[in-house]
Amino acid sequence: MTDQPATGPAQGPVPSGANLPDAVTVERADAPGPFLIVCEHAANAFPAPWGDLGLDGAQQRAHIAWDPGALGLARGLARGLDAPLIAANLSRLIYDLNRPPHSPGAMAERSEIHRVPGNEGLTAAQRVARTEAIYLPFHARLRAEIARRLARGQRPVLVTVHSFTPVYNGVPRAVEFGVIHDADARLAQAVLVEAVARTTLETRLNEPYSAADEVTHTLALQATPMGLANVMLEIRNDLIATGAAQDAMAETLAPVLTGALSRIGGA
Amino acid sequence: MTDQPATGPAQGPVPSGANLPDAVTVERADAPGPFLIVCEHAANAFPAPWGDLGLDGAQQRAHIAWDPGALGLARGLARGLDAPLIAANLSRLIYDLNRPPHSPGAMAERSEIHRVPGNEGLTAAQRVARTEAIYLPFHARLRAEIARRLARGQRPVLVTVHSFTPVYNGVPRAVEFGVIHDADARLAQAVLVEAVARTTLETRLNEPYSAADEVTHTLALQATPMGLANVMLEIRNDLIATGAAQDAMAETLAPVLTGALSRIGGA
Repeated sequence: MTDQPATGPAQGPVPSGANLPDAVTVERADAPGPFLIVCEHAANAFPAPWGDLGLDGAQQRAHIAWDPGALGLARGLARGLDAPLIAANLSRLIYDLNRPPHSPGAMAERSEIHRVPGNEGLTAAQRVARTEAIYLPFHARLRAEIARRLARGQRPVLVTVHSFTPVYNGVPRAVEFGVIHDADARLAQAVLVEAVARTTLETRLNEPYSAADEVTHTLALQATPMGLANVMLEIRNDLIATGAAQDAMAETLAPVLTGALSRIGGA
Repeated sequence: MTDQPATGPAQGPVPSGANLPDAVTVERADAPGPFLIVCEHAANAFPAPWGDLGLDGAQQRAHIAWDPGALGLARGLARGLDAPLIAANLSRLIYDLNRPPHSPGAMAERSEIHRVPGNEGLTAAQRVARTEAIYLPFHARLRAEIARRLARGQRPVLVTVHSFTPVYNGVPRAVEFGVIHDADARLAQAVLVEAVARTTLETRLNEPYSAADEVTHTLALQATPMGLANVMLEIRNDLIATGAAQDAMAETLAPVLTGALSRIGGA
């Protein structure tokens, strides 16, 4: 157990962060394209004060800790679409930014078949501390990027980029490209149409996950209240295992997104 | 015109605030009750760097600048319900915290029959600066208060407190107590039932405003994504014109809220 000791609720809304790692990286912040690319599961870093949560090296490299390949794909999309990228710096096992603080998955005690010892029996104060150090600053920064654009009269389109494992709990998955929506399905449906027309990817709507699996928190938190078009992309991670494959997938998917946005009449 | 000069987009997500007034006040932050009381239109202060927006003293005191009586009522409810209160410090005419940054009402050029000279022809940079100085910190603080409670396993219930003018555009209003909901109507419907049973107030659902008038932004932004029960209360301001009347109304409405929460099975 390397979790920080319980110290009672923090006094301010967010700790100063002087001794905490930054939760969020923003690249190409001023890029002018209509999309905002988000990658909540970009990283498998386990820095202090949380540390490795008792996981071994193989577990820290596995898909339970992050979405392998997603950051490279997200960077390629941001480049191809001339869009900002907002990415997480820490493993989803320390805090899963696509889950609200009350979700058991936010600081999961188990992931697939793996125990996460450093997340077992967290105190309320420990849960609050991670929420303040990771969840709040990440989503505040994303909110700020969105709000600035709204104040300028722009309507950013939110695209979250994820990857999924080809075999889950022993069962192979045929889907290669999953397109997932929250309350507003317009963009997701248009992405599906464009992907079928433009690519050879086995593309499916709301697979391997859907909003019913509570995977659309970022969309629901950031896009839906502002009425912004939005979509979550899930790529099977064996298709984006190398930098070259990530770049190639980004080149395949950027025109899918641009075509889909055009299909729904812009943002 | 006292608006600050356009200086280009700020670099950080939120300005440091060293030279800006605080946008938000939190009272009774650690109060343990199940409700969180919010008052977005609590204040009619017009501090620098924005100043009076070219409005005269009568306009600055009128309902266009704030919700008269709402803060006193909100404080009474927070006291009676042992709840935190999150309140705005600045006039809604500088930034209306119940509107997203792209809404024309966020920095309204007109309110009812009144021009707001200091809001006419704002540049994108001026709109961004107000969004960063007022909207983002207010809603970040409210989000943090909610998130901390969620991380502790609590499910706060969001209640926003507003007042409305008895005569609008020359037309008298019969409704005294308006109960307004966003996507989740459960708590609002229960408040209506309890108000009819427990009070003599002329109580109506979704009057004098409803979500169709874009008045439920705070609920949609803060409560709906977390699945939290929520309601917006609108009291006719002639009924809460004095401190004594505000206290009496709080004593009337606190048991209405408690009864309504019990009616929907707690938070």
